[in-house]
Amino acid sequence: MKEVVLGLLGLGNIGGGVWDLIREFGEETALRTGYSLRVKKALVLDKKIHGGKEVPEEVLTTDKADILEDPEIQIVCEFLGGEQPAASMMLRALENGKSVVTANKMALSLHFDELRAMAGKTGAGLYYEASVGGAIPIITSIQSPLIANHVEQIMGIVNGTTNYILTRMAAEGADYGTILKDAQRLGLAEPNPAADVEGMDAAYKLSILGSLAFHNRVYVENIYREGITKISPEDIAFGREMGYVLKLLAIGKDNGDSIEARVHPAFLPADHPLARVDGSLNAVYLYGHSFKDMMLEGRGAGDAPTASAIVGDIIQAASHEVHPMPYLRQNPVPVADDWQSKYFIRMAAKDAPGVLAEVMGLLAGEGISVSAMMQKHAVPGGKAMIIVITHTAPESAVQRVVKALNPEICQVENVIRVEG
Amino acid sequence: MKEVVLGLLGLGNIGGGVWDLIREFGEETALRTGYSLRVKKALVLDKKIHGGKEVPEEVLTTDKADILEDPEIQIVCEFLGGEQPAASMMLRALENGKSVVTANKMALSLHFDELRAMAGKTGAGLYYEASVGGAIPIITSIQSPLIANHVEQIMGIVNGTTNYILTRMAAEGADYGTILKDAQRLGLAEPNPAADVEGMDAAYKLSILGSLAFHNRVYVENIYREGITKISPEDIAFGREMGYVLKLLAIGKDNGDSIEARVHPAFLPADHPLARVDGSLNAVYLYGHSFKDMMLEGRGAGDAPTASAIVGDIIQAASHEVHPMPYLRQNPVPVADDWQSKYFIRMAAKDAPGVLAEVMGLLAGEGISVSAMMQKHAVPGGKAMIIVITHTAPESAVQRVVKALNPEICQVENVIRVEG
Repeated sequence: MKEVVLGLLGLGNIGGGVWDLIREFGEETALRTGYSLRVKKALVLDKKIHGGKEVPEEVLTTDKADILEDPEIQIVCEFLGGEQPAASMMLRALENGKSVVTANKMALSLHFDELRAMAGKTGAGLYYEASVGGAIPIITSIQSPLIANHVEQIMGIVNGTTNYILTRMAAEGADYGTILKDAQRLGLAEPNPAADVEGMDAAYKLSILGSLAFHNRVYVENIYREGITKISPEDIAFGREMGYVLKLLAIGKDNGDSIEARVHPAFLPADHPLARVDGSLNAVYLYGHSFKDMMLEGRGAGDAPTASAIVGDIIQAASHEVHPMPYLRQNPVPVADDWQSKYFIRMAAKDAPGVLAEVMGLLAGEGISVSAMMQKHAVPGGKAMIIVITHTAPESAVQRVVKALNPEICQVENVIRVEG
Repeated sequence: MKEVVLGLLGLGNIGGGVWDLIREFGEETALRTGYSLRVKKALVLDKKIHGGKEVPEEVLTTDKADILEDPEIQIVCEFLGGEQPAASMMLRALENGKSVVTANKMALSLHFDELRAMAGKTGAGLYYEASVGGAIPIITSIQSPLIANHVEQIMGIVNGTTNYILTRMAAEGADYGTILKDAQRLGLAEPNPAADVEGMDAAYKLSILGSLAFHNRVYVENIYREGITKISPEDIAFGREMGYVLKLLAIGKDNGDSIEARVHPAFLPADHPLARVDGSLNAVYLYGHSFKDMMLEGRGAGDAPTASAIVGDIIQAASHEVHPMPYLRQNPVPVADDWQSKYFIRMAAKDAPGVLAEVMGLLAGEGISVSAMMQKHAVPGGKAMIIVITHTAPESAVQRVVKALNPEICQVENVIRVEG
């Protein structure tokens, strides 16, 4: 039995969850793995507030140096969240030869290159299974059992808050604002929900997942991003009528000479495996040239599921003589600024002859063919609602059509990509 | 870059798939991992037949000693299938300090203790990600990222042949024999289908999965096993009417003082994540005390998906200084011979008053309460079809009721467990 000495940066929800899991299940984990985990120090803002986790007084510290500079501490677990000071502290821990375990997708995504370089320099390990999909073993799977694959596509529901909101909007026919407020009341959405509902959280996760799956850095600033704030109950209802379910997806594709990376709402056929991943569940669908189609589904957040992944990483960090380091290709390809998709275009049009012909004409002019069309007359305002679903077409061409439509005659209400 | 020298035992479908994956993707895999894979020898029955895989003549051998006794060969990959001589050859390879990678659930399940002991003795590694669920990273996940969990339940669709047959029976309302013949014609069922349709294949896999998840040996001979041969289109149709989907499940539960391990057809609620895993797909649903609910889904068979898992294992075997060894608890608990489930009981009864009362009386006498009942009059033979779905009850009590029913008055057509 080897003792492994840990320092925790933060003792909030996740830190507390890890503390609990080690306390309750540490003995059994030690039997299974040969590693006995001991938390020597936990960094807190105020020693008086540590969430009633029954942490002994001598474990608590308000001085980061007690963790980052203590040679006895072998592994530093970072639970501060946010970019700074989390990133600097992780960098310092790695510099001091300590392995780092983190669930912090933001700091990891923004500082991946530096952190990776420092780990490479000092030989320390950097582990982050919990940063994407919570308990779902997606990071380990991509890096190890699925390594001998050209991963062609990843498509994930990686943000529980937005999935919860969309699931309830679909079930209740309610509008975005109403459900958001309710989710905030239930503690399922943050008081400031922007990071979730604008897709930033999903973009950080896609940045990490894409970099690993495609062995090509995917920087978050190159990811196309669109949130769920403009989704209306009409979009969801009309989509359903045409056989689709709406999800906020993080999509990555390796097209050989470019990488697609985009976060946006998308319709999936109702029989797609991701379509029935509801509520706060997370799931990642992957396609690899050898393993073919695969989906991993589970709890993407929550103290206990996150702690499950963190403690798994701690054991990995403890057991590796040489820490695995993700390979990035020598000649990276760029993230594409155009791509192919199918499109659901919802328009409110003057209920007059010729409007549909104009829409069809513009689409045809861009070489976009239509796979389905639906027209509902006399929607509120005396207008007709026209919904067009296209065959596969370039994003740029669809955007040109949207721009070319005269809003006096035909107002585009929403454009939603159709995937799967 | 380190060269890793491999010997393949067998060059059929799986062996050929591994050969192809190494040939086509070996260079990229080497870049990613630092390990360059070289197949030095492949054992075949006849050098003239090696499946057109363009394997150089000098690689082929008909003498197992060329692989098992060659000190240059570091890793032996076993693709012979069946119990012997596969098990003896794996044992010999481990004895000679060579790590073993296998997809052979039968040999592994039946000889797990010896193989594990020999690996422990010589320090060689034993890897078998491909043995359960093909490409799905279930073995790695249980042993590594999910290790800090009390896994309370596993429930798997781990046999593609039976899932294909049941999916088609449900879609077409056809009987078992018809679909089996068609599956055989399409190469999706073996000429002798017994191992699949009688549940042996699933039982071997449950033996492996259960032993790892519960850290307690689950011997295949202690697994309750019932195949799909007695399933009729009526069972499936009536089950659907009541909101259920039929699957062949491999079920394991850790009840603390005993392990449940059983393979049998079972109804799942239509909204259970496993219910829509159709055709030849595999999936494993798990519940752990920390990660909560999770499902991993993908291709459970086929050359390429199996090769994906095998090559992943080869890299693991190459990269570990000290090979991980599954922990088994010191004081194992027995596999239970009774358990709790819900039950779908389909009976053909004399269409006369009092029959239903007798059935209900017998159930009540065993303390079994009924959650749903359906009676259809005048089915063929002038009888009534009675379907009862029970609340949770002990298996033994249900079997006593079945035995006690007078077949002259009420013939039990099928008893199917209801899970999920």
